[in-house]
Amino acid sequence: MENTDLVRCAAPFPTSAFLADKAAGYAVQHALQTIEQNEPSVRAWVDWVAPIDHSKMAESDGALAGVPFGVKDVIDVAGFPTLCGSGASDDHPAAFNAACVDALVRAGAVPLGKTVTAEYAFRHPGPTRNPWHLGHTPGGSSSGSAAAVAAGMVPLALSTQTGGSIIRPAAYCGVPALKPSFGLISRDGLQLTCDSLDTIGWHGSDMDWMLRCAAVLLPARDAAAQVCSDGIKVAVVDTAPDGVLEDAGRHALDRAVSAFRQMGAQCEVLDLAPKLQLLSRAHGVIMKYEFARNLGPVARVRNRQLSVALLENVEEGWAIPHGVYLEMLAVQQELRLQWSSLSEGADLIVTPSASGPAPAGHTFTGTPAFNKCWTVLGWPCLHVPVLTDGPTLPAGVQLVGPWHSDFQVLAHGSNLEAMLRRGLR
Amino acid sequence: MENTDLVRCAAPFPTSAFLADKAAGYAVQHALQTIEQNEPSVRAWVDWVAPIDHSKMAESDGALAGVPFGVKDVIDVAGFPTLCGSGASDDHPAAFNAACVDALVRAGAVPLGKTVTAEYAFRHPGPTRNPWHLGHTPGGSSSGSAAAVAAGMVPLALSTQTGGSIIRPAAYCGVPALKPSFGLISRDGLQLTCDSLDTIGWHGSDMDWMLRCAAVLLPARDAAAQVCSDGIKVAVVDTAPDGVLEDAGRHALDRAVSAFRQMGAQCEVLDLAPKLQLLSRAHGVIMKYEFARNLGPVARVRNRQLSVALLENVEEGWAIPHGVYLEMLAVQQELRLQWSSLSEGADLIVTPSASGPAPAGHTFTGTPAFNKCWTVLGWPCLHVPVLTDGPTLPAGVQLVGPWHSDFQVLAHGSNLEAMLRRGLR
Repeated sequence: MENTDLVRCAAPFPTSAFLADKAAGYAVQHALQTIEQNEPSVRAWVDWVAPIDHSKMAESDGALAGVPFGVKDVIDVAGFPTLCGSGASDDHPAAFNAACVDALVRAGAVPLGKTVTAEYAFRHPGPTRNPWHLGHTPGGSSSGSAAAVAAGMVPLALSTQTGGSIIRPAAYCGVPALKPSFGLISRDGLQLTCDSLDTIGWHGSDMDWMLRCAAVLLPARDAAAQVCSDGIKVAVVDTAPDGVLEDAGRHALDRAVSAFRQMGAQCEVLDLAPKLQLLSRAHGVIMKYEFARNLGPVARVRNRQLSVALLENVEEGWAIPHGVYLEMLAVQQELRLQWSSLSEGADLIVTPSASGPAPAGHTFTGTPAFNKCWTVLGWPCLHVPVLTDGPTLPAGVQLVGPWHSDFQVLAHGSNLEAMLRRGLR
Repeated sequence: MENTDLVRCAAPFPTSAFLADKAAGYAVQHALQTIEQNEPSVRAWVDWVAPIDHSKMAESDGALAGVPFGVKDVIDVAGFPTLCGSGASDDHPAAFNAACVDALVRAGAVPLGKTVTAEYAFRHPGPTRNPWHLGHTPGGSSSGSAAAVAAGMVPLALSTQTGGSIIRPAAYCGVPALKPSFGLISRDGLQLTCDSLDTIGWHGSDMDWMLRCAAVLLPARDAAAQVCSDGIKVAVVDTAPDGVLEDAGRHALDRAVSAFRQMGAQCEVLDLAPKLQLLSRAHGVIMKYEFARNLGPVARVRNRQLSVALLENVEEGWAIPHGVYLEMLAVQQELRLQWSSLSEGADLIVTPSASGPAPAGHTFTGTPAFNKCWTVLGWPCLHVPVLTDGPTLPAGVQLVGPWHSDFQVLAHGSNLEAMLRRGLR
């Protein structure tokens, strides 16, 4: 596949620096124009608003005043139904914004509408295409959020991850994204699928937009200090159970490791295979067991409107013995606090975000093999795009840090982004 | 206050043994008759169904076939709005049952309707009265579930606890209740108030009914073995930060400890004061911080329909520094797994469920002082009524066990109930 073959709708949203001296309402107008232009190809949205009250936006002096954003359609936005990518869902409009949407609105941001999700944030894909090549999947389940940001329609979009549903589409669509520490962002107004795994995060147009959103959505420990990547110890994890790293994925990892070395970090490969096997098993057990119970009510009433893949997953979940589930919950709880021993004293783990670039076609959203172990641990995971100008679709790496180290991980991600940009000059 | 002063609607629902040879539909008919009789005095229900399709119930061969139950009105039941004890809430009927309701329905149980909750499961009380004395509070926030069970209207009612909202009303209304281990019952279909604390549990007419519900709702490790209370080590915790134990509460605790000693348990008082201080602080910080964010969307749009107490709690939550919140989340996560060191090797903790019997009046639902430390730990808490025939309203004790030991705790509760009954002969 040659670069010239790509049908590209991918383009970054204007930077916050560019928007600084623009009139209130400029960012929203730009967003709506870009949606109008690219949406027929990309199909990232379930629905979006046309009429925006500019006078109201002008009033806000919040940190994200006038910034448009998208919301994955498993999260409530007042006035829109939460359709969960399924005809089985309730189509009554939500009365209130979800807590995470409210937090952004409080900071002046403007919810433009709902982005496409795979059916109930699981596997069955929606109509969204990859903005870098319309013949490829954008990944899932947060397909629309990743694609909308990648197509320059919005600088930010809320997403969710239970397996690899934030990080994988970010990798396939070549945009940064954070799956925060488990438990830090309220799940009020979210259609739950797995209580012990579901995590709200977001896709952003660049690391600056990522940080602006983090400042609003995540509790910060102290005033943000400059975090330096010089002298830190980076553990490189280049395998995953059931995951086969492709050449482009390997190349992205090598390039990220080189960039960290250039910044003065000590990078060493860490073999976590036995632990990752256990974590992968824990993820599978917890995910299926809880999914069956949370999708039970819908499956009972409207099973004909659900995909075979979803119903099979529900059946598998009912078959899991209670004792095995409890054992895996205990594994999850215990390992969450064992960063130091698992990482062998590293400050940061760098690992592939996906096995490689987005596969061709639209029926398979890709494998979460490189994501699920970190999701079950509840540790913050940040995707940083690395290869965005090569002969293939984008590829990148995932930075993982200890529970509640979200701002440190974001800072190292900013440093990596800056270093990679310097390297590209 | 003399026993003769009590206006009693309190009466147990028929036992499962009594119901065994009754026709399908008998339990539901009995429930509806009792509701009709007692509801004008007790006011436990927001709404309930009259028409029940008996033919459908007869079909079920589930473990709870034909068993009627109530559902606290912060949990979805298909066809009813989830009003959360507030005029501010969305009054659109839920399309699906919550996952916990679905689990009971799957076992053949029949949801009769919605029980009264304090406003958004916080403090501002609903109209419910204590079935043991209509001039007294039933406790809160699961007021209706506790009172409906205590008045013999249903053998089971789903409830929730964030501070002391299951255990305290159970104590005041003299019925058993379980707040399970945090995370074991899905919160799909629940109006969240605090992600790190909200726990779904239930009130039951006696320990047999409690166990029947547990077998359906909770994952069991193995086939239930007979658990003996002989030879176990019981830690008696008789204090709580900001809690003053009244005479009746002390009397109930002493009697429970005597019963455990009669069964062969070793009971020793354990001074946990410094740890409980820390846990109490953690509870306050986590509760207020998360409450503010989860009630934010409603408070933004409909704040005139919310109580002053609720709005003040939201304001206090916004004022909590992020760093303090993160610190307290870490305390919670770490202490959850430290049962052995905290309990000094005990098998079970026995501690008051409340400071004493239900206070007079209906404006104050009582203090959660004796509940919140155990809630923040996420450990299973079982209320067992002890004094139900004395000169005061009921009082009892709370059995607390390690995370995920719910069935052991329930078994010790059954042993205690049986021992107390023998003592009463």
